[in-house]
Amino acid sequence: MYAVTIPQPGGPEVLTWVEVPDPKPGTGEVLIDVVASAVNRADLLQRQGYYPAPPGAAPYPGLECSGTVAATGPGTSAWQPGDRVCALLSGGGYAQRVAVPEGQVLPVPAGVDLVDAAALPEVACTVWSNLVGVAHLRAGETLLLHGGASGIGTFGIQLGKAMGARVVTTARAAKHGVLRELGADVTIDYPTTDFVAAVRQATMGRGADVILDIMGGSYLARNVSALATGGRLVIIGLQGGRSADLDLAALLAKRASVTATTLRSRPLAEKAEIVRGVSTEVWPLVEAGTIRPVIDRRVPMSAAAEAHRLVESSAHTGKVLLTTG
Amino acid sequence: MYAVTIPQPGGPEVLTWVEVPDPKPGTGEVLIDVVASAVNRADLLQRQGYYPAPPGAAPYPGLECSGTVAATGPGTSAWQPGDRVCALLSGGGYAQRVAVPEGQVLPVPAGVDLVDAAALPEVACTVWSNLVGVAHLRAGETLLLHGGASGIGTFGIQLGKAMGARVVTTARAAKHGVLRELGADVTIDYPTTDFVAAVRQATMGRGADVILDIMGGSYLARNVSALATGGRLVIIGLQGGRSADLDLAALLAKRASVTATTLRSRPLAEKAEIVRGVSTEVWPLVEAGTIRPVIDRRVPMSAAAEAHRLVESSAHTGKVLLTTG
Repeated sequence: MYAVTIPQPGGPEVLTWVEVPDPKPGTGEVLIDVVASAVNRADLLQRQGYYPAPPGAAPYPGLECSGTVAATGPGTSAWQPGDRVCALLSGGGYAQRVAVPEGQVLPVPAGVDLVDAAALPEVACTVWSNLVGVAHLRAGETLLLHGGASGIGTFGIQLGKAMGARVVTTARAAKHGVLRELGADVTIDYPTTDFVAAVRQATMGRGADVILDIMGGSYLARNVSALATGGRLVIIGLQGGRSADLDLAALLAKRASVTATTLRSRPLAEKAEIVRGVSTEVWPLVEAGTIRPVIDRRVPMSAAAEAHRLVESSAHTGKVLLTTG
Repeated sequence: MYAVTIPQPGGPEVLTWVEVPDPKPGTGEVLIDVVASAVNRADLLQRQGYYPAPPGAAPYPGLECSGTVAATGPGTSAWQPGDRVCALLSGGGYAQRVAVPEGQVLPVPAGVDLVDAAALPEVACTVWSNLVGVAHLRAGETLLLHGGASGIGTFGIQLGKAMGARVVTTARAAKHGVLRELGADVTIDYPTTDFVAAVRQATMGRGADVILDIMGGSYLARNVSALATGGRLVIIGLQGGRSADLDLAALLAKRASVTATTLRSRPLAEKAEIVRGVSTEVWPLVEAGTIRPVIDRRVPMSAAAEAHRLVESSAHTGKVLLTTG
């Protein structure tokens, strides 16, 4: 088969579409003929050498895919060859075939195109596990989503609204129209507007009950300032730095929490539990049209470098798909 | 009645035992004839002017008391004059009488002396609400308690063991014997021993699943280092500083959380809920003798300055009581 390899860490140009050995499904694994994968920020880090694949994962980038089941390994029972599926991967999605534990495989939601389904597993599992499992977001609460135009953001706006929350999001002004169509109640043009003041204004001074953040260090102080009493800050990316001063007195006065977490490093059993939760709680919302995959464009997988350049520029809205067809 | 007043912020010597107006029970409140109160660290801060009583609370220090119900205000139903009780207060315990919302009043546990019962409400509510409600401590997990010889520490060791956790605690070596008798599995002499290394050694490298901390800033980096994957750091005091650098990359790699919280500032409904939980889940453990109040000594309330000096010296083990009798 062909896959996107990283012969040495570097810029998008290092990504190389070459022939590699076919994977075989191990015990408990399913082999998928990949129709599409999607670009995640973690792939850019992996390409630069900062985020190696966890032990046992394929060495190629790609944290999600869609396609059809090609074969099943020993000890599997849930899937049959030919099933149309999508999957949460620990790596290896940028390839024509990938082997994945069967607990990380999901059906393609009814009404969703097979290629488009590749846009869903990573954002659905990440956003749902954090809003529900970590932050315990409740109806009537205010959710602040940073990077509203990203894959995480466009999915988070829709899931937050479906959960009954008020959704405030930061994004460049040019993207506000799309984000409001997706359901965002308040859109903040972060280059020109102080998001802390904007969140306070939008909440009559209360602040955000839950913040889903991808910036980390550079936003820590402002995120704590923007939290409501009892607020929960969940950090899932460190695009703005790996550490920062934490004002514990402010956190204590608000009885608030800071959690930092990733999906990729979780043990298989936790991933399978999250995938089950997404299947039963999120897929019905997708099948009802309440949540739809937001796709910026499709790019041939052999041109993955072009897709990486696009995501690095942040000019996109939603997911950038990589297709094998 | 007499109460301990703070004419101006300062050292222990400012505490003044003088006649003040009697409190009256408001709607939903119970008036208690105080038999004893107890010293908490927050009282020292209040005396120094750093931790003012919240709106509506009595201006005198004292976050807990025991005694008998003297009268009940309109809209109360749970208590009758003469009932032997203890209570979680927002202030005003250093007085001969105090009015308190009835939801913050608890019966004196069977088998506990009326005076000694003053040692229980604040630590029971603080430790239980944090270990159960905030940190979700589970049987088989490792709990690291800083300040094991404090009121919080001596109670936390016993509750942690009763919940099936392994308890590791920091304290000066002279106090280790008592803390082991209370159930501590591992005691760390923090002035001579690196607690991060000691926790790792005690957990085969895993770290602590839950840390209950009263130091804040000065311990933040080391506490994050001592956390296990999935660990929860709960900060309830800032004795070591109000802010510090937080290593978000380390937190993210561990999928861990930092929560800072206080009991005193919580709304009445949350306090009442915590008190109900303590009554149903903790009092049976006290009545069975699984958990006992640990009392350093009794001091007359009129000599509160002496009690404050003792607590500031950290020479005590457990609670220092203030008696009106």
